[in-house]
Amino acid sequence: MSASERVVIVNFKTYLESSGARAVVLARICESVADETGVTIVVAPPMPDLASVIAAVTIPVFSQHADDLKPGSTTGHVALENILASGAKGTLLNHSERRLRISDISSLVGNAKRNGLSTVVCTNDLPVTRACAGLEPDFVAIEPPELIGGDMSVTTANPEIVSESVRVAKKAFPGVKVLCGAGVKTGEDAAKAIELGTNGVLLASGVVKASDPKRVLLDLAAGVQR
Amino acid sequence: MSASERVVIVNFKTYLESSGARAVVLARICESVADETGVTIVVAPPMPDLASVIAAVTIPVFSQHADDLKPGSTTGHVALENILASGAKGTLLNHSERRLRISDISSLVGNAKRNGLSTVVCTNDLPVTRACAGLEPDFVAIEPPELIGGDMSVTTANPEIVSESVRVAKKAFPGVKVLCGAGVKTGEDAAKAIELGTNGVLLASGVVKASDPKRVLLDLAAGVQR
Amino acid sequence: MSASERVVIVNFKTYLESSGARAVVLARICESVADETGVTIVVAPPMPDLASVIAAVTIPVFSQHADDLKPGSTTGHVALENILASGAKGTLLNHSERRLRISDISSLVGNAKRNGLSTVVCTNDLPVTRACAGLEPDFVAIEPPELIGGDMSVTTANPEIVSESVRVAKKAFPGVKVLCGAGVKTGEDAAKAIELGTNGVLLASGVVKASDPKRVLLDLAAGVQR
Amino acid sequence: MSASERVVIVNFKTYLESSGARAVVLARICESVADETGVTIVVAPPMPDLASVIAAVTIPVFSQHADDLKPGSTTGHVALENILASGAKGTLLNHSERRLRISDISSLVGNAKRNGLSTVVCTNDLPVTRACAGLEPDFVAIEPPELIGGDMSVTTANPEIVSESVRVAKKAFPGVKVLCGAGVKTGEDAAKAIELGTNGVLLASGVVKASDPKRVLLDLAAGVQR
Repeated sequence: MSASERVVIVNFKTYLESSGARAVVLARICESVADETGVTIVVAPPMPDLASVIAAVTIPVFSQHADDLKPGSTTGHVALENILASGAKGTLLNHSERRLRISDISSLVGNAKRNGLSTVVCTNDLPVTRACAGLEPDFVAIEPPELIGGDMSVTTANPEIVSESVRVAKKAFPGVKVLCGAGVKTGEDAAKAIELGTNGVLLASGVVKASDPKRVLLDLAAGVQR
Repeated sequence: MSASERVVIVNFKTYLESSGARAVVLARICESVADETGVTIVVAPPMPDLASVIAAVTIPVFSQHADDLKPGSTTGHVALENILASGAKGTLLNHSERRLRISDISSLVGNAKRNGLSTVVCTNDLPVTRACAGLEPDFVAIEPPELIGGDMSVTTANPEIVSESVRVAKKAFPGVKVLCGAGVKTGEDAAKAIELGTNGVLLASGVVKASDPKRVLLDLAAGVQR
Repeated sequence: MSASERVVIVNFKTYLESSGARAVVLARICESVADETGVTIVVAPPMPDLASVIAAVTIPVFSQHADDLKPGSTTGHVALENILASGAKGTLLNHSERRLRISDISSLVGNAKRNGLSTVVCTNDLPVTRACAGLEPDFVAIEPPELIGGDMSVTTANPEIVSESVRVAKKAFPGVKVLCGAGVKTGEDAAKAIELGTNGVLLASGVVKASDPKRVLLDLAAGVQR
Repeated sequence: MSASERVVIVNFKTYLESSGARAVVLARICESVADETGVTIVVAPPMPDLASVIAAVTIPVFSQHADDLKPGSTTGHVALENILASGAKGTLLNHSERRLRISDISSLVGNAKRNGLSTVVCTNDLPVTRACAGLEPDFVAIEPPELIGGDMSVTTANPEIVSESVRVAKKAFPGVKVLCGAGVKTGEDAAKAIELGTNGVLLASGVVKASDPKRVLLDLAAGVQR
């Protein structure tokens, strides 16, 4: 993705609405909106559906997590090399629901880069955003935990934290792209995120649990392009 | 599976030899041997390949692990409901490379039963085998950690621990089936495991890293049927 | 402790009311009640206060937790050998606030026995109680998590689970002593626990946060002796 | 401690040589060397001995670890408020044997500051050193894991990583003091660490397992003062 690109990442989490066959259905909706709007939409399906979603769509598919260990005798874990073998283009790391050790994030970001995988490191506050941006991932995604899954977008609840996070992150690593998560649901929220200096949004329930995900995605895509 | 059935479970671990497209290839080899021999062969592919392997074969596919949590806001984890949605028939639990808390194993075994999923709880010694069999899973798989991935089968290195484990497990829960892992590589090893009272074998590198996995699987299938 | 002994274990948790110098004060109150009543009272102070509490009282002092690892290059952990070196007589294991892997509980119970340390394994339901009793610890302590720290004693809320736990635990290991926790606050609760077949109670906030801990302890001691 | 001070931190780890009564003995030796030389010597005894060591010496005593949680219903953990109540002056965080999540380190460093506790964040490489220094702890301690407990000091094995770490850390937070660990054993090693721009050393086995710890400490104290 070029630095100028606007991006919407849809985290399917482990919702039943986006698990199994429904993961493929939702990924295809995301793909159709990406095709219609030209906005980059990335999907991060539940772990067991990663390869099957990848087989079904042409948009980038990311893992929700990776463990900092070698492929091989590590049953029940997921190495970067495994998601690469399955065709993933990148991975979320350090999501608030799956926090990682700093030494593991550092190692994973470095290994991902060597393997051509993109990384999105989730962060919760300014010091953590600065620390993680300094590890030089492709993206940091700011998600104040108290707003995740809530009704109010971080861009409305706390616009200063968004613009300040962008400033802090770019200062630590000018090449980093910043995403904004937590409570983002509408094109309005997404447009606000872009105005505040981000490259786009990371969201989950706003799309996954929508009665009409395509309508929501079209709205978000319009928002990030404004 | 009926109690009289003999079973071979192939744990693909996170080996690159059994990851991504190669997971599907290996699963198909397992399927062909199951078809030719009538032996039940179960495969447990890397997490990201679960659904795509399920789509490719008709033999039972198990997850390598499940987390004791609800599907939904649990990014980067895998709930039983997710592997069920992906079409899995069961899951390994408490593998030596992914040990679980006793309260989580208990909860997972109960939830799996309610969801029609089979469980294979891995154990390392007699007290743990007794404790886990008492939770009433479908299988316990005895794998002394010091023998895993090694050159000598547990059936040769320590036949008493196998027969004693069978005794202890069945006493704790008469309905449990016992598998034998750790170092198992040949039909001879498998036949010995059956003689010692088990219902079959759980193995990984012996198949995954074999130059001719089909030959090894045919040998194992013949072994468990002896 | 002989099998006939009645016991009250006071878990200081990490409450500030029972931390630092106040840990020593509370332990001395427990000691005075033990002296006055003849009931065995065991205290489990916060980790940093273990040795200093041991130096201050003659009643048994237990650790709240131990890690299943070797003493040595394991900074920030606590091996059984460390709590032994500090003079502890035993340890709680698998508290609901610090659950352990089944293989670690098994290893810790065995090592504690070899080192002359008592073990109290906390459990949450019948299958886990049976599993843990089968590991042959000195005590299992039944604490349904939904009742911990609550207003109603498990002996009132669910007396059947207490008597059934005693039955299940003794069947798995006749030598085990059973304690009852979760919501226990009064001598009445303690007496009921004894009636239901236990050897005593494990409690925390009921003593730690009492305005007059001595009065509460005297009441509990009378309860377990009824 | 003023920025100009030179410091030696002795991590007792969980060695039996520095556990229980022997923790107090070793802490007193450290105290005598601090008194004789004027060098600040900090000790970090095993968790169970924290308060008893604090009662025995006047030099600063640090915890080896703290959990990012509230004191109270958190059995078997250690909150900052607990080590504060026990009289500790600070804590190590993120030791290679007890790595922490980045969000926890950030939260702990902030809370420690508010509570007047010093923090020493251990790091393993340049990106992690920069990330952790940016959280504004009192100290970062560079310990390449491959050298910990080894025979060669990091100052000899890799002097560039030490001076480069100092540069990177001070750039991220000019107020941070840098310590150097891993393989440090002699006054020569310590003098080299000071030359390379650090404020002193963090070490363990070099003192704990020495046949004459006092002699080693006097040598180290002379080294950091050169």
